[in-house]
Parts: sequence; structure tokens; C-alpha cells
Amino acid sequence: MTVAEIARLVGGNVQGEDKAEIHGIAGLETAGPDDLAFAEGDRSIASAAESHAGCIVVPEGVELAGKTTVAVARPKLAFVRAADALLPLPAAPAGIHATAIVHPEASVAPDASVGPHVVIGRGARVGAGTRVGAGSFVGENASLGERCVLYPRVTIYPGARIGNRVILHAGVVIGSDGFGYVMGDGQYEKFPQIGQVIIEDDVEIGSNSTVDRGALGATVIGRGTKIDNLVQVAHNVTIGSHCVIAAQTGISGSVQIGNYVIIAGQVGIADHVRVEDQAVLGAQAGIPTGKIIRKGVTVWGTPARPLDEFKRMYAHLSNLPDLARKVKELMQQMGSKKE
Amino acid sequence: MTVAEIARLVGGNVQGEDKAEIHGIAGLETAGPDDLAFAEGDRSIASAAESHAGCIVVPEGVELAGKTTVAVARPKLAFVRAADALLPLPAAPAGIHATAIVHPEASVAPDASVGPHVVIGRGARVGAGTRVGAGSFVGENASLGERCVLYPRVTIYPGARIGNRVILHAGVVIGSDGFGYVMGDGQYEKFPQIGQVIIEDDVEIGSNSTVDRGALGATVIGRGTKIDNLVQVAHNVTIGSHCVIAAQTGISGSVQIGNYVIIAGQVGIADHVRVEDQAVLGAQAGIPTGKIIRKGVTVWGTPARPLDEFKRMYAHLSNLPDLARKVKELMQQMGSKKE
Amino acid sequence: MTVAEIARLVGGNVQGEDKAEIHGIAGLETAGPDDLAFAEGDRSIASAAESHAGCIVVPEGVELAGKTTVAVARPKLAFVRAADALLPLPAAPAGIHATAIVHPEASVAPDASVGPHVVIGRGARVGAGTRVGAGSFVGENASLGERCVLYPRVTIYPGARIGNRVILHAGVVIGSDGFGYVMGDGQYEKFPQIGQVIIEDDVEIGSNSTVDRGALGATVIGRGTKIDNLVQVAHNVTIGSHCVIAAQTGISGSVQIGNYVIIAGQVGIADHVRVEDQAVLGAQAGIPTGKIIRKGVTVWGTPARPLDEFKRMYAHLSNLPDLARKVKELMQQMGSKKE
Repeated sequence: MTVAEIARLVGGNVQGEDKAEIHGIAGLETAGPDDLAFAEGDRSIASAAESHAGCIVVPEGVELAGKTTVAVARPKLAFVRAADALLPLPAAPAGIHATAIVHPEASVAPDASVGPHVVIGRGARVGAGTRVGAGSFVGENASLGERCVLYPRVTIYPGARIGNRVILHAGVVIGSDGFGYVMGDGQYEKFPQIGQVIIEDDVEIGSNSTVDRGALGATVIGRGTKIDNLVQVAHNVTIGSHCVIAAQTGISGSVQIGNYVIIAGQVGIADHVRVEDQAVLGAQAGIPTGKIIRKGVTVWGTPARPLDEFKRMYAHLSNLPDLARKVKELMQQMGSKKE
Repeated sequence: MTVAEIARLVGGNVQGEDKAEIHGIAGLETAGPDDLAFAEGDRSIASAAESHAGCIVVPEGVELAGKTTVAVARPKLAFVRAADALLPLPAAPAGIHATAIVHPEASVAPDASVGPHVVIGRGARVGAGTRVGAGSFVGENASLGERCVLYPRVTIYPGARIGNRVILHAGVVIGSDGFGYVMGDGQYEKFPQIGQVIIEDDVEIGSNSTVDRGALGATVIGRGTKIDNLVQVAHNVTIGSHCVIAAQTGISGSVQIGNYVIIAGQVGIADHVRVEDQAVLGAQAGIPTGKIIRKGVTVWGTPARPLDEFKRMYAHLSNLPDLARKVKELMQQMGSKKE
Repeated sequence: MTVAEIARLVGGNVQGEDKAEIHGIAGLETAGPDDLAFAEGDRSIASAAESHAGCIVVPEGVELAGKTTVAVARPKLAFVRAADALLPLPAAPAGIHATAIVHPEASVAPDASVGPHVVIGRGARVGAGTRVGAGSFVGENASLGERCVLYPRVTIYPGARIGNRVILHAGVVIGSDGFGYVMGDGQYEKFPQIGQVIIEDDVEIGSNSTVDRGALGATVIGRGTKIDNLVQVAHNVTIGSHCVIAAQTGISGSVQIGNYVIIAGQVGIADHVRVEDQAVLGAQAGIPTGKIIRKGVTVWGTPARPLDEFKRMYAHLSNLPDLARKVKELMQQMGSKKE
């Protein structure tokens, strides 16, 4: 793409050579004359002056002498969109690999790509433009929408419903049994785990994460929600739209999470918690059973508290040795007064 | 099954139409006239009056006007048992799929089901009625008992011994090397990891969980123990019978866990800990190296303390700002008295 | 091997029958006359006197009447090295299994072993003596050095570079996309994840662990570093040489870790943290964004503090109920004085 084409795509203004050809993307330090880079924030803009990038996306109002730039309101976002156009996902061969086992009653779109050693069960559906990576498993009656990307070795249990443009990284498991038992006569008996999993459009789930099906109802992950690696989503969890959930977080059964919620890494959410829209859960926070986290509130710690309260408590905690010393002095003074 | 047959199976008393046919199960809210549901607890029983379920399992003494019910001592348990009879696991085709690679010196029961792209090594044994899901790997001399279910992409390292009726979900790894090294001359050298893994009857292990083999001895998971997703069991761990271990818990090397222990999610147990029978470890608890958790005790926090102690300490922690204010006042009063 | 050969290998002195044949290794309690065992530490040496091991590696200066021993400066290390010689990894058949799909433009060393149902992409390289376990996936242009061991079902994304003698356990994922998004108009847009992963020589990574590629730069794991099961390494992380990282630890984006760092289990390290050489991070520690852990310092807790400070604070925390009682008494005394 030429710089002019990039500028048109992102709605920016060119300074410099608008006919220069750009073939790739890179960070400011490593970019070469073929690469697009971006600068956002003072430090980044300062180092942009030293960059060898062929074109730099900059904030409106920024000029870099001797550099070719495209000025926009939100440079990082424009960079993301230009990168998407410059570097589309490498094409996967359409069709079903000779070693894949596709049930005759499964339905695979003609332009879908089904990799080596894939297994697709009876009644399963693979939508247009979807690619199923090597060694993946799509169970009976499961459905994948259009333009999904399943990396190698993904497992979709029977009946799971996956929307459009969903990305599932290697080792992801969707629809395994929830963890529910009833104590019988000295031993646990398995509560039926026959519910659904519904994953809406534009969700991305990281490597080796696991999402259990509902016990009787459904587990739902809402549109546009992004989930990192090694995350656990238990049965009957409902996650809203456009949430971000970082690595190794665990979400217990029947938890309800609203929209635009941000959950940092290694957070633990006990069962039946409700997290309202736009709440933020700090790293390693622990949310006890049944708790409600109100709209827009940021919490931290275990058990989790609003951030201000946590910080205040934590400052007092740090002062504990000092406080203990003061009390000791007071007792001595009091003792000497008594005499 | 008719309502009468269900009642006979669970030892309950029918009110209403005992000849009604029941084909499935559901929650009270979504159940239809073909479905069995259950009600246990006041709230659940109240909403049962509005349910369209064809049959509801209720506690003894509860009557629901105009509904067909089966009354038993423990409705949830009866529901579980009826569900098991109503909805057996879908049959898997007996025999070895054409794409599976089974070593000629492996032994696979005639009615076992070996899925596509499975690999079974020399000397391995697959028992009667056991099903090995697509893409699973059963190493040399490993053995699987009868009626086990391995979902797709399970890995059993060589030599592991799995009992009967064991359920292993997708991505589970059994028998990988423990994490043991000795510092040599500036670099770690691998301590031999050649021991065993023994998984007893009726164990269930969730998706992408990992169980390491013993270094020289064995890692053992006792009969009836249930393990959730993404759990780590290190080398030489011994877990007793009928324990429940929730998602993302990590159990370090040489830990000993008794029977009927309950471990919540994201618990971390350091090496050489001993957890006695019926102990309960709260979510995210951290148990330091070598610690002993006594029989029946509930602990919480990091480092873990008995629950009462933890709560007391935590209440004081919440009062810290108040305490600090009081000490300040005391010091001011003391100061003014001094003058 | 004879006892004399073992002694020569580890540079030790034999007491007893130096012509005895040793075929295996075991712990002191279970070892038989064919086995090598070792004793290090008083308790272990005491129990060595009761062992039936054919040969025991002991510290210099220790004599065990009636036993065959090899005395060395570091018995455990000598045991490790002898075990390595006694029990080499079972040979894997050289060559490419008939069911593996190897791209014609991939390069596989003639003595490499490529297992059943493996997929190796265009331009990928598999070095001499490397074994690729059943069902593993090696993406386009990825490279594996010499004498690596990939256990079954490992996924290597395109372009990843793996050094020599690297061990990757079952379910490991190397090179998946990092977790980076930019908020667009009400929805997250994916920041390009096109960087590299470089895994240096002699690294070992445990089952189901995940390592993301760099976004624009690289994720690097240094020579000799050992990583346990279910560990998450995010994009653009740099880990130095000879580190040890225990199970379920999560390392966020752009973290820099030095050499000989020890990280216990379930540690969470937020983004842009720097951990200097030889630091030690205690189990479940949480390191907040941007924090620097200085060379050789041991930290614990969330947010992490130097161990001494943490212990002091924790002791005061335990004394809180007592402190609160004292303040109450002081206030009562002060009140009564006022009157």
C-alpha cells in the first residue's frame, strides 16, 4: 500500500512522500523504510524522530521534520486498522484435508478450510470462510459461524454454538462438563452437565483456556469479549459484551458479568457473583460467593474491596509497626502516670 | 421412562400421573411436559408451583397442587440418579477407527471405542467399554480400566495406570515429568522423573488439567476424587478418596491429602504439606511448605489460617483506620495532659 | 553399568563391591540390589543403612557398613548424572511416520523422529535427533534445533525458533497471539501480534503451558530456564538464563526477568515489571505493574514486599486483636482519668 492509501484508509493527513510503498509494520526502533510504525505519547513521539520507519502514524498537530507521517486523532487505533489491511491472515487452503474425518451429515461451507487430522461430527456446521486448524475436534451438532479461526488442537464438545469471526487459540476447550456433584452415600455422584455453550461474534479466546457448558442452562460469552490464555469459565456463567479477561483468571459457576468489564490476571470469582457493567477487577483479586460488584467500581485484594478502601487499608497495614510502637509508648506513659 | 419407573428407581412416592412419559431433564423454569425437574429448598419449591415440568422430584411431605411429583428424602440426589438413567452417554462406535495407530502389542478390549487419530503404544491396555476420544495418546505400557471416558486430545504418558470408570476431559495430561532439578555447575540438571501415576476408580479430571508422574515413587489420585479444569498435581502427590478440587488449584510435590477433603479454586499448596481428612481449603488459600492442616479444619487466606482466626484478623484489619485514629487521639490527650 | 563405571562417571570413591551390576535407580526405601540410590542429609543417610539398594551415592566421609557406596562431594548431583547414563530416553524410531503431514518444503533431519499425525508446515526445520510427538503441530517457518523432545500434542505457531535440547511437554503452546487490543468505537480491535518467540537451548517447559509471541518484537526464554506446568508467558516477555518458574505462574506483557531468578508457584507478575538476577519470588506473590525487584532480593505477598518486611508486617497483623484490646484499655483509663 502507498502512504496515500493508508492515509485514506484511516482518515489521516500525509506529510512527506505520499507515494512511498509500505509492506509491513514494526515498532519505531526496528522499523525500516518499508514499514509502518506509530507514535502516541510524548516519549514515543520523541523517539519517532530517530525512527527509520517509512511512515509513522502520529497524533494530529505533530510534525516530524524529514519524516513521512500520517496524522490522525488516535494513532494506535489507526495503526491497528492499517496493519489489518497490510497484513491479512495468510490464506488457508479451502476445502477439507484428505486426513480429516468429516461426518457425511456434517455441513462444511465450500470455502471453509478444514486442516489435517480434524474430526467433525454428525450434524456439525462450519460456516463460510472459517478455518479449522490441524487436529481440532468439532463435536456432534456443534456449529461454527463464518470467518472463524480455530488454531490447531481446539476441542469443541457436542452442541456448542460459536458465532462469526470467533478466534480460538491452540488447545482451547469449549463445552466440557461443568464441575457439579451431589454427595450420595459416601461418594460423589455427577450432576448432569447437558446444557449449552454459546459464544457470540468476535470473541477471541487464548491458548489452553477452558469454557464449560451449562449444567441444565447455558454458558454464554457475549459479543466482542476477549479472553486470554489459561482462563477458566465454569458452567452457567454469563459474560456480557466487550469484556477483557486476562490470563489465568477463574470464573466459577453461575457468575454473571456485565458489559465492558475489565478483569486482570489471576482473578478468582466465586460462584453466583454478579459483576456489573464497566467494573474493573484488579490482578489476583478474589471475589467471594454471591458478592455484587457495582457498575464502574474498581476492586482489588482478597476478599476484594473498592480500590480506595483497599489502598487506605493497605497504607495502615504498612504503618502497623509504627502504630504498635505508639501503643507501647502510650502504655508506658500511662503506667508511669498511674504510679 | 414413565413417572412410575422413575419413582421406583429413586424409591419415591408419586403424586399425579404416574403413567406420564418423561424423556429429558431440565431446570424448573425451562422444563416442559416431557422433562423431569427437581425442587430442593424453600425458594426452589415455591417456583416449582409455576413450572411446566412433566414431573418434579420434591422433598417428602411437599405437595404441589395440579403437578406430578415424586417425593423422596434427597430430591437433588434422586434427580441425579434418574438423569443418569434417562440420559445415558451417547453410544460410541465399538472398535478401532481406521485412522488410529494401535501398536500390535497393545491390548484393546473388543467393545472399547478408539476414535480417529488416536495413538496407543506398545504394551498399553484399554479395558472393556472404555472410549478413547479423537486424537488422544496412550503411551507404552499405560493401562486404562473398564468403562473409562477419555474425551478428545487426552495425553497419557507411558506407564500410567488408570482405574475403572475414570473420566478425563479434553486436553488432560497424565504422567508428564515432575519439576525437579539439581543445580550443577551453573546450570540445572534434570532429576530423573521415572515414577508412576496411579489414578483410581471413578476419578474425574477436568479439561487441560495436568498430573505429573512421581520422580522415583508414585503420584496417586484416590478413588472417587473429582478434579476441575486447569488443576496442577505435581510429582509424588498423594490424594485420598472422594476429594473435590476446584479449578486452577495447584498442588506441589510430595503433598499428602487425605479423604473427603474439599479444595476450592486457585488454592496453592506448597511442597510437603499434609492435609488431613475432611479439611476444607478456601478459595485462593496458600498453604506454606511443610504445614499440616488438621482433620476437618477449614482454612483461608495466605498463609492459610483457621477460618475463625482469619475472620477475626480480617475484621480487625478493616478497623485499622479507626484504630489508628484512636491512637492519634490518645497521643494528643496524653500530650496535653503532660503540659 | 558396574559400580566402578558409575564411580568413574561421577568421580567418586567406591566402598564395597565395585563389580556389582546396576540397572536402574530408585529411592532408598524401594531400591533393590539392581538399583542405584543416593543419600544426602542426616535423615537420608540414617535411612540408607536400612536400604537394599545395590549401590548408594553418599557424601564424602560417610561409610555404611556392609553397603556398596560411591562417595562424592554432591551425591544428589552425581545421582542425577549417573541416572542419565543408566536410563537414557527410550529410542524413538527415526523417520517420519506414514500418517504425518510434512510439507515438501519443510526440512527434517534424517535421524529426527516425527510421530503419527504430526503436521509440519512449509519452511519449517526439525534438527538432528529431535523427536516430535504424536499429534504435534509445527507451523510454517518454525524451527526446532537438535535433540529436542516434543511430547504429544505440542503446538508450535508459525515462525517460532526453538534451540537445541529443548523439552516441551504435552499440550504446550508456543507462539500464540499476545493479548493486546485497542478500544475502537465501542469495541476492541486486535493489535497486531506478528512478533517472534525465541526459546534458547536446554529450556524445558511443562504440560499445557503457554508462551505468546511478541506483538511487534520478540518473546525470549533464555538458555537453561525451566518452566513448570500451566505457566503463562505473555507477549514481549524476556526471561534470562537458568531461571526456575513453578506451576501456574503468570508473567504479563513486556516483563523482563534476569538470570538465575527463582519464581515459585502461582506468582503473578504484572506488565512492565523488571526482576533482576537471582531474585526470588515467593509462592502466590503479586508484583504490581512497573515494579523493579532488585538483584538477589526475596519478595512475598501481594503487593510483593521484601521477605523480612513481609514477615514483620505479618507478625503485627497477627497481633492486631491484642493491639486493639490495648487501645481499648488505654481509652478506658484515659476516660476514667478525665473524670
